[in-house]
Amino acid sequence: MPATDRSTGFTVKDPAFASKVRESFTRQTIMGLLGAELTRVEPGECTIELPFRADLLQQHGFFHAGVVGTIADSAGGYAAFSLMPPGSSVMSVEFKIHLLAPADGQRLVALGRVVRAGRTLSVCELSVDVVKDGARRACAWGSQTLICLAERPGAPYPPG
Amino acid sequence: MPATDRSTGFTVKDPAFASKVRESFTRQTIMGLLGAELTRVEPGECTIELPFRADLLQQHGFFHAGVVGTIADSAGGYAAFSLMPPGSSVMSVEFKIHLLAPADGQRLVALGRVVRAGRTLSVCELSVDVVKDGARRACAWGSQTLICLAERPGAPYPPG
Amino acid sequence: MPATDRSTGFTVKDPAFASKVRESFTRQTIMGLLGAELTRVEPGECTIELPFRADLLQQHGFFHAGVVGTIADSAGGYAAFSLMPPGSSVMSVEFKIHLLAPADGQRLVALGRVVRAGRTLSVCELSVDVVKDGARRACAWGSQTLICLAERPGAPYPPG
Amino acid sequence: MPATDRSTGFTVKDPAFASKVRESFTRQTIMGLLGAELTRVEPGECTIELPFRADLLQQHGFFHAGVVGTIADSAGGYAAFSLMPPGSSVMSVEFKIHLLAPADGQRLVALGRVVRAGRTLSVCELSVDVVKDGARRACAWGSQTLICLAERPGAPYPPG
Repeated sequence: MPATDRSTGFTVKDPAFASKVRESFTRQTIMGLLGAELTRVEPGECTIELPFRADLLQQHGFFHAGVVGTIADSAGGYAAFSLMPPGSSVMSVEFKIHLLAPADGQRLVALGRVVRAGRTLSVCELSVDVVKDGARRACAWGSQTLICLAERPGAPYPPG
Repeated sequence: MPATDRSTGFTVKDPAFASKVRESFTRQTIMGLLGAELTRVEPGECTIELPFRADLLQQHGFFHAGVVGTIADSAGGYAAFSLMPPGSSVMSVEFKIHLLAPADGQRLVALGRVVRAGRTLSVCELSVDVVKDGARRACAWGSQTLICLAERPGAPYPPG
Repeated sequence: MPATDRSTGFTVKDPAFASKVRESFTRQTIMGLLGAELTRVEPGECTIELPFRADLLQQHGFFHAGVVGTIADSAGGYAAFSLMPPGSSVMSVEFKIHLLAPADGQRLVALGRVVRAGRTLSVCELSVDVVKDGARRACAWGSQTLICLAERPGAPYPPG
Repeated sequence: MPATDRSTGFTVKDPAFASKVRESFTRQTIMGLLGAELTRVEPGECTIELPFRADLLQQHGFFHAGVVGTIADSAGGYAAFSLMPPGSSVMSVEFKIHLLAPADGQRLVALGRVVRAGRTLSVCELSVDVVKDGARRACAWGSQTLICLAERPGAPYPPG
């Protein structure tokens, strides 16, 4: 029976949601290349962090907007995935990111949070903070649409 | 005097636009990490390509949506930058990407194209194709807003 | 058997697509309030026009951005609907509009054009021109995601 | 001297912000046509409400997505405008709206809230609820970029 999570208020359809998310994250090879870490998984919420490295930057020495978008997209994807029934897979339909301030600092913290969890489509809020010398400020914010697909082992992906 | 480019119809304010773009691209260290190549710079248009590598992927073995977004964001940024006057710098204000199809193939080709070139704000169209076994198909499409800032050597960045 | 349209290249699944679109348009009562006209329906493309009226404006005397967005949203919705099978209904999932220039003129012309026609989700390009003293220029541009739902007569709407 | 508002935490640069917003709203003639009411103005926040009327609908009898977007765009615009210095004018650069649920009910309530208040560009969160039989639920949510322009009396609009 689906259970409602106390902290986030969302209904969990797969009790193994956290290990499911963590297992999928390890298969996203880009996360390893960037050095991103999955630091928190709750029903409908997910946090991914990324320490500064000199090979992640744009021309002014800040984290590249695409790097910001990459961890935000995965954070939102896993936030939505955490609420999907067993046997599902998730794909981003679209996402939009506002760059609120230069991503200038020692660490990025991306939070994905489900705004609407539908049977087929979900919508997430994406928020990215940058931590510099101990101070944390918002550097990106946006939204994302995701689709829930049935995972079919052995079948060509994506289904349909 | 500003000159209008024959092929794209845009007015060029900096005759050195192509070398300016190429120089800035080399400073985007993330492009080196991903293995992205700047393959074409025209007034108001820019193409960035990215060969397949096993460390650029999401959980199903396709290019990660954030990787697609990263080269699309830079392609649009440099398309806009190519039309800006000398002494400018460019930053993304926001971008949105639709994932039209899985980015499943051996190479990504991202095209940024200026839709509106304003004094302060520009708007670009972002298109990403994936090449698989010689066939090329659209896998992402979107739009982007950019801002032109005055570069001030020696001053803290960004200005203002 | 689905037929491919010569002019737009899209496959038509409902030969009665044009009358289906026109019939639905007449049920959008907001179009009558604004004075909008459905002037063109092709497979995967739709044009809606709106003559100037003093009660459609924002604070500077131009067409309000929301009015621009309203006819763009319907133009894209009907572009997608034109390619859907009989018995479908269409709803917007999300849309984004860039306001490229003030909508200052005697007439708006909104074009919706399908970029991707999927079984469940479609993506459209939205373009709005404003006509002033015989000259036509782009004033808005954007993108839209739509979902195809099965229409069930007598059932509560929307399904599911 | 700019004052920080207690309830919203934003700095007010024009003490007459509320009357400035209300005066501008009365000049948006589309609001009168739709029957929209400006019901709340705080520093960085604005609420616009719209009662049901049979001529505001899409083909299934719900508020049209464009109508939802119209009051959301104005709510965000005035939220940003409330924080701008005297002599400014505001224009939407772009906005994106997710349609979370059918806008099925007796009243829409659109809230615009400033996420970033910059000297030139601002970003707002747009939230629209629908009230049906006393119950209130989210039906739309999105984001918006706005630009602050200097109003020049007697000069052609927009400046520059």
